[in-house]
Amino acid sequence: MTKLTTVRLKPPFLILIGDQSDPTYVKTGLGIVHWRPELVVGQLRFAGCGVDMGVPDMSVADAVKAGAKSLVIGVAPVGGVVPDTWWSCIEEAARSGLDIVCGLHFRLADYPGVVAAAKESGARLIDVRKPPSKLPVGTGLNRSGKRLLTVGTDCAIGKKFTALSLAEAMLDAGMQASFRATGQTGIMLAGEGIPVDAVVADFISGAAELVSPDNEDNHWDVIEGQGSLFHPGYSGVSLGLLHGSQPDAFVLCHDATRRHVSGWEHYELPTVQDAIDQHVALGRRTNPAIRCVGISVNTSGLAADKREGYLANLVSETGLPCVDPLIDGCGAIVELIQQQFPEV
Amino acid sequence: MTKLTTVRLKPPFLILIGDQSDPTYVKTGLGIVHWRPELVVGQLRFAGCGVDMGVPDMSVADAVKAGAKSLVIGVAPVGGVVPDTWWSCIEEAARSGLDIVCGLHFRLADYPGVVAAAKESGARLIDVRKPPSKLPVGTGLNRSGKRLLTVGTDCAIGKKFTALSLAEAMLDAGMQASFRATGQTGIMLAGEGIPVDAVVADFISGAAELVSPDNEDNHWDVIEGQGSLFHPGYSGVSLGLLHGSQPDAFVLCHDATRRHVSGWEHYELPTVQDAIDQHVALGRRTNPAIRCVGISVNTSGLAADKREGYLANLVSETGLPCVDPLIDGCGAIVELIQQQFPEV
Repeated sequence: MTKLTTVRLKPPFLILIGDQSDPTYVKTGLGIVHWRPELVVGQLRFAGCGVDMGVPDMSVADAVKAGAKSLVIGVAPVGGVVPDTWWSCIEEAARSGLDIVCGLHFRLADYPGVVAAAKESGARLIDVRKPPSKLPVGTGLNRSGKRLLTVGTDCAIGKKFTALSLAEAMLDAGMQASFRATGQTGIMLAGEGIPVDAVVADFISGAAELVSPDNEDNHWDVIEGQGSLFHPGYSGVSLGLLHGSQPDAFVLCHDATRRHVSGWEHYELPTVQDAIDQHVALGRRTNPAIRCVGISVNTSGLAADKREGYLANLVSETGLPCVDPLIDGCGAIVELIQQQFPEV
Repeated sequence: MTKLTTVRLKPPFLILIGDQSDPTYVKTGLGIVHWRPELVVGQLRFAGCGVDMGVPDMSVADAVKAGAKSLVIGVAPVGGVVPDTWWSCIEEAARSGLDIVCGLHFRLADYPGVVAAAKESGARLIDVRKPPSKLPVGTGLNRSGKRLLTVGTDCAIGKKFTALSLAEAMLDAGMQASFRATGQTGIMLAGEGIPVDAVVADFISGAAELVSPDNEDNHWDVIEGQGSLFHPGYSGVSLGLLHGSQPDAFVLCHDATRRHVSGWEHYELPTVQDAIDQHVALGRRTNPAIRCVGISVNTSGLAADKREGYLANLVSETGLPCVDPLIDGCGAIVELIQQQFPEV
């Protein structure tokens, strides 16, 4: 049996976001600050950084004094590498004894300066995005227990946030539920998972099957989605994850004001209804009973007085609960799930 | 600019198919024998082998005497590994000075016995399935020139064969065309390409974009498809390849008598029309003008007197040219392409 990638991190964390100016690419740092603020001692920013995560600014030396045990690379830029200019800072942290935690596509072991510094101090180099080495091909066989997958009209649109929020709301409602991580930040938060976008392409759905194995009949796995079926770069990951997850239910994540694929502005986003229909059409292949149980909308770009009207419109268009999980929580979606799956 | 994986093999080949009994999993060996018979000196089979490629049976010693320069591992089993019992034979070949050519998921360098034997004799170990190390994420940007992708209702259903046959038929018709390889056998035949099922999942469509770069307006890239959108194990690869290839046209490959996904018998194949519709619905995302230009059917399972009727029915159902490329060639499909793309 292939084991999931398992990480055990040492808090508290100093989170490096450098000179990154677009919050879209700081989702790792922002996710940790939101979901596990008690683990964060501060943020490390360079001149020109356009993002503030709302925690104290610290240098490496400050953080060590404040008791930090790990430097977490808190960005997830396109292509998965950090600028060359960041490495002297990462080396300094390793030399100071901080574990270096990285969820990007490269391997820390490939940077000799960091390797030497960590060896000297005893710090660990932790590549969260390294998948298990022997993954199976997806079988497509049914598994026991129920599954919900979060999907999106685009990348970086709230799939992880929604899955965490839904799992929490299910537990609050007295249901059995587990958040299942498929990306670097999710794995950092959950302590286990498989980074499905980093596996060899033939094994995407096999990895997804491992992430949500057989479980009790009354248990929900709430699986963090990756990419988007509509994304010209990442659609393959999304389809493999959809087929391997075999979700009974999915929640579509959307942004009320985004019109184009973020960073791929020559692509328009699909409509909410088209996105639902396409996921049902494709998801049916491995779970004929797949259905959409709600829409999770980032409404932060709307004026405050437009928010309720926007969501009410979407409810009447789709007949589904539509929430901004950051404001409304996911209780309305969990209620529909309880109605539609009374046997669970 | 990332370079494509490029291989230069030394013929003639001894092709190892061992004790494999299912021709579906001997597609690498069978493909080479069909398309480049002049490169093949013989086949190496073990007791219990249920496949005969129609070339002389030889031991390693026989093949060396007959002038063989390379041992090609000619199987492509599920999961991409060969049985443990085959390695003594592969070591013997390396010790005898034959290059070892392998297109599976493992690396020859991970087998110390083979590495030592090759070092002693000077033989090369050639992993055809190793993708370039720095691939880009797919851009989704349009490229010049025309593209045709072969797709399938299942895996191992003639996508490579059809692409090779189509490229040949286009050249015969005086058109500009190149076969573009995306799998191990195709790369062995073409001498270059990227094994898209072996790339890291985030880079599938980026790899596909590299495989068929900008070209002359009157040039067709005929791209070898991989997997199937309907395959519970491999659908992610297929969607990434579809989006990255941005095909103007596709040819659907099918088997007249196959009813279930080969090796995944709990999954029925889609109908031909459903498969066409699904590829159009998804392919439109990166090329709104995508269209199906023909159906390539393996009719070998039909009685000889049923073949023409089957294809005629399919023509009247779909309005498209339907051929068995092994019997009919792809001329009818090329004629439709010339009608529908008069500007090329």
